[in-house]
Amino acid sequence: MTAQAGKKQSAPAGPLDRLSDLLAGDMKSVNAEIIRRMDSPVALIPKLASYLIAAGGKRIRPLMTLASTSIFSGDIKRAHSLAAAVEFIHTATLLHDDVVDESTARRGQDSANLVFGNQASVLVGDFLFSRAFQLMVDDGSLDVLRILSDASAIIAQGEVMQLATANNLSTGMGEYLEVIRAKTAALFAAACEVGPVIAGADAAATRAMAEYGLNLGIAFQIADDALDYAATQDKIGKTPGDDFREGKMTAPIILALMKASPEEMKFWSRTLGEKQQTEQDFNEACRLIKQHDSIAQSLELANDYGNKARLALAEAPDHPMRALLDELIFYTISRES
Amino acid sequence: MTAQAGKKQSAPAGPLDRLSDLLAGDMKSVNAEIIRRMDSPVALIPKLASYLIAAGGKRIRPLMTLASTSIFSGDIKRAHSLAAAVEFIHTATLLHDDVVDESTARRGQDSANLVFGNQASVLVGDFLFSRAFQLMVDDGSLDVLRILSDASAIIAQGEVMQLATANNLSTGMGEYLEVIRAKTAALFAAACEVGPVIAGADAAATRAMAEYGLNLGIAFQIADDALDYAATQDKIGKTPGDDFREGKMTAPIILALMKASPEEMKFWSRTLGEKQQTEQDFNEACRLIKQHDSIAQSLELANDYGNKARLALAEAPDHPMRALLDELIFYTISRES
Repeated sequence: MTAQAGKKQSAPAGPLDRLSDLLAGDMKSVNAEIIRRMDSPVALIPKLASYLIAAGGKRIRPLMTLASTSIFSGDIKRAHSLAAAVEFIHTATLLHDDVVDESTARRGQDSANLVFGNQASVLVGDFLFSRAFQLMVDDGSLDVLRILSDASAIIAQGEVMQLATANNLSTGMGEYLEVIRAKTAALFAAACEVGPVIAGADAAATRAMAEYGLNLGIAFQIADDALDYAATQDKIGKTPGDDFREGKMTAPIILALMKASPEEMKFWSRTLGEKQQTEQDFNEACRLIKQHDSIAQSLELANDYGNKARLALAEAPDHPMRALLDELIFYTISRES
Repeated sequence: MTAQAGKKQSAPAGPLDRLSDLLAGDMKSVNAEIIRRMDSPVALIPKLASYLIAAGGKRIRPLMTLASTSIFSGDIKRAHSLAAAVEFIHTATLLHDDVVDESTARRGQDSANLVFGNQASVLVGDFLFSRAFQLMVDDGSLDVLRILSDASAIIAQGEVMQLATANNLSTGMGEYLEVIRAKTAALFAAACEVGPVIAGADAAATRAMAEYGLNLGIAFQIADDALDYAATQDKIGKTPGDDFREGKMTAPIILALMKASPEEMKFWSRTLGEKQQTEQDFNEACRLIKQHDSIAQSLELANDYGNKARLALAEAPDHPMRALLDELIFYTISRES
């Protein structure tokens, strides 16, 4: 019955795979809903949307909506369409992100903006975003609509803030954490909050699940940002060094800057501050980051947020899926690093 | 008391000005709500949003929401925030449109994408779109949320369809009408439908107001597309010839193509089909369009939709603002042409 068995015979299944297995039937319904609702008489829309959605991705956000609904014994049928809404919002932000970042790769293939153009990526992102709200309206919960419209506004704010801090060497850890809390963690929090909300759980339990999602999301993004200086393209499905080339002020950079010698500071000023990069510069950036132990320090920070996530999760009812969500925290942080 | 008196002393006030005057107090509240809700701790967001919003625009969509609420004696306070939501959706689509079209001018000034960059325009558009849904959630009507999420999905579909038909000389009048019905008229329809919906009007009256908005929107867009081949930058606040340069298949072009000689067909194939344009080509396009009477024919088509709008509006309760909405139809079609 393990859906992932064919793919991963060598390693024991991680918590994400086991969660996917436990929720395989529900995820099938979510995927069917995704395919049904990304359809449109305008052929380019399902073509572009399915190009990105069919390429996989971990589907971690819809899984959290399903798991949080199950843990609180909510109506899992309602969770199917809301999990699809969550994935649509995520997909819309990916499409717009890739346009903003001028990305060339996503999920191990050419990015949608490269294949279909920036124009189509912007507009299909808008379509999926609208579709997400249509799905929520069909469900009929104003609470869910509030959670996900709030999250969407926060995500956009985070993305704009990231844009405003790019190439700015004075960006501190506080600003970085604010950016990732908004651009990444807000949707994790919302995905987790939907479950207890549709289950009619009390405010404290609902808040705890949102806290779990928020802190997991922060930990996830810090680990992701560390990976950009410590992994190969093969492992992360995107081009390593993208963050460096885009001048994104992420944890490894901010930590390395704190310890930079005057000579190193010149390097960072030229490559990030003045955007003057040669092909060798990314390797030098990785070397400096390694030398200052900035990857390990980033992962320690991720760990701190992971611990917060664990504490919050403990307030949810005891459930086999709660145990998997707990395991997921440190699996998320340690993936591929 | 005429708000526009200072600006337009020479000509008698048109129905839009008179509607603005009648609704001046309410529009003040709408504008205050717009300014309050486009605020964000991320400074670039209000900076970019106010750059576009403060540049004016006719505010025709929020005026329709206010007028349709007044005609049906709905709660005008609720209409204030919903009119702001309608304007936010419109502004978000303008920001994304200008990125997609690579525009350089909007509302008589440099376009936001030119001043702040494409990246910020995409993300601030996303923010305003999310904000629109937050405003609707605060209002709490699932009917309104359905109307505006449906309209948003249709707008995005229309924009993608426009992209897919660009530079395609075989695009027919049916496809063109489908594009403008979606990209423009759907939001006019939604803006008009909100009023009777929050007033609790019956289904037939609600449908009639939506029909009015839809047909007015189609007429408005046809007239706008005609203007792109018949006006100066000074009059339309954007660069004339943009549609031609972008290869948009609009009414004047489609009508001129129907009557094109083999020689003229070569011109259209080169300039639109193969995108090989010289600086003189736009003047030649205008000459051919004039020669074949395609502007007048376009405006006749706009007139047909105007008549449909008039018929639908007649089903609404008798009211001074209904008379102004009626006048607005042919004012919209004949503006500046």
